[in-house]
Amino acid sequence: MVFHLIGLGLATEEDITLKGLRAVQRCTKVYLEAYTSILGVPRTRLEEVFGVAIEEAPRELVESQIEPILERAKHEDVALLVVGDPFGATTHCDLLVRAKQLEVPINVVHNASIMNAVGCCGLQLYRFGETISIPFFTSTWRPDSFYDKLAANLRLGLHTLALLDIKVREPTMTSLARGRPEYLPPRFMSIRQGITQLLEIEKRRGEGVCPPEARAVGMARVGAEGQMVVTGSLVELRDVSFGAPLHSLVLIGRAGADEEELLTAFAMGAAQAPRLDANGAAAEDAATARANAAHAGERIHGDDDDDTDGAASEEGADSEAPSAEDGGGEDAKAALAEAGAKAAQGASKATDKEKLDAHNVARAQTLEGEGKKVAGGMHKFDASEVDVHGGDGTADDFLDAFGLG
Amino acid sequence: MVFHLIGLGLATEEDITLKGLRAVQRCTKVYLEAYTSILGVPRTRLEEVFGVAIEEAPRELVESQIEPILERAKHEDVALLVVGDPFGATTHCDLLVRAKQLEVPINVVHNASIMNAVGCCGLQLYRFGETISIPFFTSTWRPDSFYDKLAANLRLGLHTLALLDIKVREPTMTSLARGRPEYLPPRFMSIRQGITQLLEIEKRRGEGVCPPEARAVGMARVGAEGQMVVTGSLVELRDVSFGAPLHSLVLIGRAGADEEELLTAFAMGAAQAPRLDANGAAAEDAATARANAAHAGERIHGDDDDDTDGAASEEGADSEAPSAEDGGGEDAKAALAEAGAKAAQGASKATDKEKLDAHNVARAQTLEGEGKKVAGGMHKFDASEVDVHGGDGTADDFLDAFGLG
Repeated sequence: MVFHLIGLGLATEEDITLKGLRAVQRCTKVYLEAYTSILGVPRTRLEEVFGVAIEEAPRELVESQIEPILERAKHEDVALLVVGDPFGATTHCDLLVRAKQLEVPINVVHNASIMNAVGCCGLQLYRFGETISIPFFTSTWRPDSFYDKLAANLRLGLHTLALLDIKVREPTMTSLARGRPEYLPPRFMSIRQGITQLLEIEKRRGEGVCPPEARAVGMARVGAEGQMVVTGSLVELRDVSFGAPLHSLVLIGRAGADEEELLTAFAMGAAQAPRLDANGAAAEDAATARANAAHAGERIHGDDDDDTDGAASEEGADSEAPSAEDGGGEDAKAALAEAGAKAAQGASKATDKEKLDAHNVARAQTLEGEGKKVAGGMHKFDASEVDVHGGDGTADDFLDAFGLG
Repeated sequence: MVFHLIGLGLATEEDITLKGLRAVQRCTKVYLEAYTSILGVPRTRLEEVFGVAIEEAPRELVESQIEPILERAKHEDVALLVVGDPFGATTHCDLLVRAKQLEVPINVVHNASIMNAVGCCGLQLYRFGETISIPFFTSTWRPDSFYDKLAANLRLGLHTLALLDIKVREPTMTSLARGRPEYLPPRFMSIRQGITQLLEIEKRRGEGVCPPEARAVGMARVGAEGQMVVTGSLVELRDVSFGAPLHSLVLIGRAGADEEELLTAFAMGAAQAPRLDANGAAAEDAATARANAAHAGERIHGDDDDDTDGAASEEGADSEAPSAEDGGGEDAKAALAEAGAKAAQGASKATDKEKLDAHNVARAQTLEGEGKKVAGGMHKFDASEVDVHGGDGTADDFLDAFGLG
């Protein structure tokens, strides 16, 4: 059979492609990888819409315990769902290489990722230089290699996408030593923290690459309903309240007149954006300080020998997962065509899903009621939807909030 | 109501997202833009699967006659489908600006594009520099600005994606003068032609940026069933038979050890790839020469004042398009959930579609029978599926072949 590596796209259960959905529904086992990026909806929402049971795949499983799953894929259809495009993370590429080595047939389904969706700010994709990643600083580890890459891009007049760090299910150093991992709370770097780190390096290096007045675009929840795109100087953007993850930052190179027009149309100015109040800013800074302290001196990497308490694959049959008959390509196409027609009719047999739908409706109405329509923004958004400044949530709280619990 | 700009993704009717499909099915009028890129399936296939009538939107319509469509979107849901991601082409960004100026509500649905799908060759997306475009040379217009961009990327050790030119429905200069456009045959630049142009500029400039032995990756039909990914020197790749469009080329910078491993796993070596025979190569070169002659001295741009014989929007009701009731977000979600469950069951009421499906099955079987499984390639492919070397096809032949007729 086939190992399917399926891109889920940017934000919700509806961002999967028909090709991806068709593949998922052929599978007897479906995993969700959610530590290199996250979706904006709970895993249960995917299960409901896709009609399959989905198991969360922790980092250890994907990085070092994938072989049993690949072996299983020789006899059954198995899928790993990943946020964005499958080739966005090196770890997925490595996984495909291992599948090839084991001679497991592969099916890769592409999707949108921040690497191309960043175009929604109005800057042209073909004018971006090398992408940089800004990792969480610790008290002893404050790398600045991205400063040089940024400088090189700017010398060529190119824009730079800065991917902000994500840490989900990072084991603590002490727990690793005990051979029984305990996890740090998940952390998603905010635009505020990314900018703070950039300015710190600028201060240290002093080469004028990203001074406080450098122009940038802050982007939160790209492709989701609450998308937020704001332009301004680094120091202005640092005090904008961007709300829930994921955040990304674009450093602007030489923008052409056409790009300036698009920027004006697609992004709001920092002056119009909601600001972090003193409490929010202080809370974010405190959370950063706490997190840095927790990580002080740690450089944690995955370890093939970790004991993960049975987090690896289960070889046994999974009675929850509907065993879709492999009806062949043409049947599936006909089914999809019919599915499309059904969707158009707006049929509403919610049955089992009524409770969740009612909850969703109520939530949507509440958000709608609070929704700020901001001049200049292309999508409506509500930055107050989720507040992540406090940093006091436990790992479970965070995972629950993003459907990974 | 809403103007929907919907990315179709890379190749087939199944690359649309559920979000995109839901939006399409709310619309009373759906257009397909297919001159900045092309899909690998006929427009009729989209109509069948999406359950809506779709009208081809020629260049003039999108670039200079879009206002009536946007005005219409104030009162009805109207969609423009575009290949790849909506922000991949400047023309779509301009269109969104106009929609904003007219205060038409906008819904943008992201999807995969070559800008992120290029990662499937194994080179890491974050190691790419500025993207270059290689335009068709004419006898008098042989620009080389992309040579400098390529040089800048290579100095930083970065990879370079080269987008190869596409010309669909280009009016002839003489017909423009007559005010009644006639169109040149559609042309899609082959990897062979792109490399030939690169080598010509290298010979002229002599800076060693892209000498014949420079390493590159040739990619054809990325994301489609017949995807082809081949590594080799420029001079080796020039003689590989890559088959039907679309073609793209990647110039390799400094690849890390991990990238080399992925390249080896995901791409086949040029020595293993099918080669253009003398006839094919001669035919391609001849087609290039003819096309150059046809374009000699021409620099054709869109003109707002073109008379396009009624190609603009029709304001009247379109009786073909099913008028889907706007059932609200939650109903649509429930419907999609049900649609997913239906698809899983593999129901096969093909009815009206039987004839086309039978044709597709036969075609698939034929291709399967001829399919070359090439060592090192990640996807199966058949380069002989479509032959575009001759260049004797009429515009209609080409448009038919790619479903744009």
